[in-house]
Amino acid sequence: MIEPAAGTQRTEGGPLAGLRVLELGHFVAAPFATRLLADLGAEIIKVEPPGGDPVRQWGAKVNGHAPWWSVHARNKRCISLDLKKPEARQVVLDLVRHCDAVVENFRPGQLARMGLGEEVLRGIRPDLIIARISGYGQDGPYRDRAAFGVIGEAIGGIRHLTDHPPGTSDLPPVRVGVSLGDSVAGIYAALGVVAALWRRERVAAQGGQQRGGDVDVALTEAVLSLLEGGLPEYGTMGTIRQPGGGGIATAAPSNAYRARDGVWMLIAANSDPLFRKLSAVMGQPGLSEDPRFKGNQARVAHSRELDALIGAWAAGLDADALEAALVEADIPSTRVYTMADIAADPQFRHRGMVQEVQDPLIGPTLHPGVVPRIDDTPATPRSTGPAVGTDNDAVLGGLLGYDGQRIAALREGGVL
Amino acid sequence: MIEPAAGTQRTEGGPLAGLRVLELGHFVAAPFATRLLADLGAEIIKVEPPGGDPVRQWGAKVNGHAPWWSVHARNKRCISLDLKKPEARQVVLDLVRHCDAVVENFRPGQLARMGLGEEVLRGIRPDLIIARISGYGQDGPYRDRAAFGVIGEAIGGIRHLTDHPPGTSDLPPVRVGVSLGDSVAGIYAALGVVAALWRRERVAAQGGQQRGGDVDVALTEAVLSLLEGGLPEYGTMGTIRQPGGGGIATAAPSNAYRARDGVWMLIAANSDPLFRKLSAVMGQPGLSEDPRFKGNQARVAHSRELDALIGAWAAGLDADALEAALVEADIPSTRVYTMADIAADPQFRHRGMVQEVQDPLIGPTLHPGVVPRIDDTPATPRSTGPAVGTDNDAVLGGLLGYDGQRIAALREGGVL
Repeated sequence: MIEPAAGTQRTEGGPLAGLRVLELGHFVAAPFATRLLADLGAEIIKVEPPGGDPVRQWGAKVNGHAPWWSVHARNKRCISLDLKKPEARQVVLDLVRHCDAVVENFRPGQLARMGLGEEVLRGIRPDLIIARISGYGQDGPYRDRAAFGVIGEAIGGIRHLTDHPPGTSDLPPVRVGVSLGDSVAGIYAALGVVAALWRRERVAAQGGQQRGGDVDVALTEAVLSLLEGGLPEYGTMGTIRQPGGGGIATAAPSNAYRARDGVWMLIAANSDPLFRKLSAVMGQPGLSEDPRFKGNQARVAHSRELDALIGAWAAGLDADALEAALVEADIPSTRVYTMADIAADPQFRHRGMVQEVQDPLIGPTLHPGVVPRIDDTPATPRSTGPAVGTDNDAVLGGLLGYDGQRIAALREGGVL
Repeated sequence: MIEPAAGTQRTEGGPLAGLRVLELGHFVAAPFATRLLADLGAEIIKVEPPGGDPVRQWGAKVNGHAPWWSVHARNKRCISLDLKKPEARQVVLDLVRHCDAVVENFRPGQLARMGLGEEVLRGIRPDLIIARISGYGQDGPYRDRAAFGVIGEAIGGIRHLTDHPPGTSDLPPVRVGVSLGDSVAGIYAALGVVAALWRRERVAAQGGQQRGGDVDVALTEAVLSLLEGGLPEYGTMGTIRQPGGGGIATAAPSNAYRARDGVWMLIAANSDPLFRKLSAVMGQPGLSEDPRFKGNQARVAHSRELDALIGAWAAGLDADALEAALVEADIPSTRVYTMADIAADPQFRHRGMVQEVQDPLIGPTLHPGVVPRIDDTPATPRSTGPAVGTDNDAVLGGLLGYDGQRIAALREGGVL
């Protein structure tokens, strides 16, 4: 458990307090799903191989620990278990007995091959909710393909749309700078778990039979779900959506423009009144009467020329001066935030979305807050991501009731 | 209700069947949240101004209807109501009496100013769940700022990270090609609603007092939640994450390369064995022994040279040939999917993630399926987005019990 920073309160409770979830996950998607549930108050028991989840090593490290881990495994209990050892299976089954849900992201079929298929798990816990996250889903012709995040995102359609317009440059389309597919799949899995849980409580309240649920989220499908009207537009008219670079295909001007000191400033003056204000701030009030830029349709048609004019103006001012001018004219705008800007932002601080925490492994650091915020519960984490096996004794001894001898035997056998 | 296309089954039920939600939403975030709930079986009553939600007009149109609407409002009942008219308030209050949750995305405080603040709503329905989505949250110094999606995304940090590496080009950072912030905020709001509902059922089952919940999701915060280890890395080491273009900062090669016929091919050969295979397929087996490219660390350090070599090879082959060679060598890869590729993909078809539907307003079209998939329920929508006010009589007459005279008076008064 961590010491809350001065002035903050520890989160206890939360809407999912009383829920217990077993995570058989690794990398990003399943662990992110359970972290969201943990943030809302659920108790998560994460099972890791004795060597640890690879994310513990991802990116730059402090004292041998990746700072990502501090967030990725916060509010969880972590136990180590080598699932390749035969003795591990019984431990998993004993855990399942005490859990409402399992969240996993092994390759489809892999848990069943370990003797942990759904019939086995439901034999122990008939109302178990089982959520599985994979690259392509639990069935179908691509089911057994390796799930690489970047590939799933390209298949889901987001890579094509995240690019400069055709003909603008020879550079490749851009990766959304985070593991978007994994994260969105994780949020969907959390939604699926809680939806199935709601049904379970409701059916039970009505005297119905115990019923769990199977949640099956594919990374590709999570990405596809974000594509707005792209599919029905294609299905009706045959039109294929194209990327719009820093702009919006149907509104202008809306783009990022570089200030003299190199900072990118996002300006969204894509209505007639806003564009009039912007023209005035730029000292070129005639622009809003220029036939090339009069009305949104004309501005969209001439957006490159328009962006060049705004860019030239922006390049003459440092970001602070540019920002002050835009704020004074009440034009929607912001500097494009880096991590430093996020950390310093007064709104994020006010809302508990940038939290100072003390991590026993890496020292004082910053965490994002809890999303979604429910009932003003403070966003302070109960704990940061723990070391491998931190909760072995508490979970195996306390929850499962294994005696010291049995735990020692598992440890000596390399199972823990 | 729509006719399901041949060979498909209509979805009835779903885990959220029995849940009724009032949507006081417009644009993207709140309507997307309720559509996800609708897809999982909830009954949604969407309130629109008599002129319709602006999304009905967004993008290209068929018969005057945006295809996006077909998906955006599917599985919902739509009633028209001019909330600016005093008579509308009582209709909303009558609806709230029959609903488990309200999802809204007006500016913070606006519903309260209309006499529809939370005390009023809870006076009618004490266990009501109220989910609010906004640009910056329901409190704090930015609360009253206009919520532009692109600005929220820039403040949330994703715009900075979605760009070519510093120094690569003069082009601005790229917008993720969809309204990412709105959509992710919508998924989080759906999660928040169901989490609060689960608590409500559980507390009720334990004989506790009726309790709803307040869900408060900010677009900026939904985006910030996706930033992996960015904030703890900054908080610990002061390092600011930088964009990586089409690549990944910590692994190479992983990028999109343009085939001779212009198609972008994503290739993820970012391990030693995969890179050996790729070098062989390229007919340059020596590359994997070249000191510049031996081991991931060396490849990351020389990723521009490496990308240029792979790019030159890819440019000599058409996409079909390139794809065949990569598949044969078992190298993770895919063409970067456009909408046409998505529509034709056998896995999406198999999984019900590309659905042929018959929309009464725009004719035959394609819909994405239901995410998350729960218990093999087919993904076929129960209905496509209806015309404005389609369900006025059914909801006001059937659900609320208004008589014909009262409905006619509302209609004549321009309230509906």
